[in-house]
Amino acid sequence: MEVYDLILKNIAKHISLDESEQSYFCSLLTSKQLVFKEFVLMEHQSCQYFYFVNRGALRAYFLNKEGKESTIMFALKDWWVTDMHAFVKGQPAMLNVVALEQSEILRISKTNFDLLLKELPKFEQFFRVIFQNAYIREQLRTIQNLSLTAAERYENFILKYPAVIQQVPQKQIASYLGITPEFLSLIRRRRTEK
Amino acid sequence: MEVYDLILKNIAKHISLDESEQSYFCSLLTSKQLVFKEFVLMEHQSCQYFYFVNRGALRAYFLNKEGKESTIMFALKDWWVTDMHAFVKGQPAMLNVVALEQSEILRISKTNFDLLLKELPKFEQFFRVIFQNAYIREQLRTIQNLSLTAAERYENFILKYPAVIQQVPQKQIASYLGITPEFLSLIRRRRTEK
Repeated sequence: MEVYDLILKNIAKHISLDESEQSYFCSLLTSKQLVFKEFVLMEHQSCQYFYFVNRGALRAYFLNKEGKESTIMFALKDWWVTDMHAFVKGQPAMLNVVALEQSEILRISKTNFDLLLKELPKFEQFFRVIFQNAYIREQLRTIQNLSLTAAERYENFILKYPAVIQQVPQKQIASYLGITPEFLSLIRRRRTEK
Repeated sequence: MEVYDLILKNIAKHISLDESEQSYFCSLLTSKQLVFKEFVLMEHQSCQYFYFVNRGALRAYFLNKEGKESTIMFALKDWWVTDMHAFVKGQPAMLNVVALEQSEILRISKTNFDLLLKELPKFEQFFRVIFQNAYIREQLRTIQNLSLTAAERYENFILKYPAVIQQVPQKQIASYLGITPEFLSLIRRRRTEK
C-alpha cells in the first residue's frame, strides 16, 4: 500500500525484507493524520510509540519550569522520533512532540516494537544503526555546543539540515541552537552582508 | 581466560553466547595496560577502536580552541567508550580519551567490529541496546542541561554515577557538569551544611 512506501524505503537503506516480512512489519504500524500544531506526545504522558514522519514535519521540545521551550530535535519526512527514555523505560515523557504543519505519521507501539525484534531479528541491525546514528548526532551536538560560536553552529545546521531551514520558523531554529531569535536574526543579517 | 571474564559478563546482560561464540568474540579483542594519564585516543588521530574498560577508569574530553577541556563522558570498569562519530564514519577523532588511573582496556577494531556483526548477528541486538542506552543518556543530558540548576545536576550525577564520585577528581566532575571547580565546591559546601 502506498502509505507504507516511504517507511519501506527507509528500512531498505539498512536491511532487506522479503514480501511477507514487509507485510508483517506494516501490520504492526498504525497511521495517523495530524493537523498543524497537533500534539503526538505531551510531557508527563506515557510514551507508547516510536514515530516515523510519513509526510510533514514534527518538533520535539522541552518546556522548562520558567515556561521556556528548548527544541531537542526536528523530525522531517522520512525521520524517526520519540522521547526515547520514556519509550524504552516506560517512564513519563519529558518531551512534547508537535506537528509543525499538516502531517502524517506511522507509529509502532512499544509492544509491537518488542514483538518485531523478536519475530524478525534482522530489525536489531536496523535499529542498531538508527540508534548508533542518533547517539553520534547527540554526541556531536554536545561537542559543537562546547566548541563553536552560535554563528558557526548555524552554518553547520544549514549544511546538515537544509530541509529544516526551508520548513521551520526561525524562532524554533534559534531554540534548537540555544540562542534568542533576535541573535539568530543578527547572525543571518551579518551572513547576507558578507 | 580471566582477562575476558568481565566483558563476557557484560555481553551476557543482553545476549547469550555458547562457548565457541565466546572464544570467537574474544579472539577479536586485544588487551592493553595503561598507566595513569596515558592516552588511548587523541584528537585528530584516526579512531580505530571501540574500548571496554576492564580495570580502572577513562575520561573522554573535548579541548576547545581556547584550551578549555570539557568532559564528554567518564568510562569506569565495565563501560564501553569511544569517539563514536570518528569510529563509525572513519573521521579524525574530536575527543581525547585518557586513563584516570592505572587501567586495563580491551578493544575491538572497526574491522573486527564489522566482522563480529557479520559472523555473529546476535551482536546486533547487543549493540542495539548499548547504542539505545547511549542515545538515551545523551538526550537526558541535553534536557537536564536545559532544565536543571547546576546543584540539581550534581545531585542527579551522584545518584546516577556514585562510583564516578568516588574515583574522579572534583575538577573533572565540574567539567562534565559544565561549571567551574569553584562553583562545584560551593555547591558541595552548601550541600553538607543542609
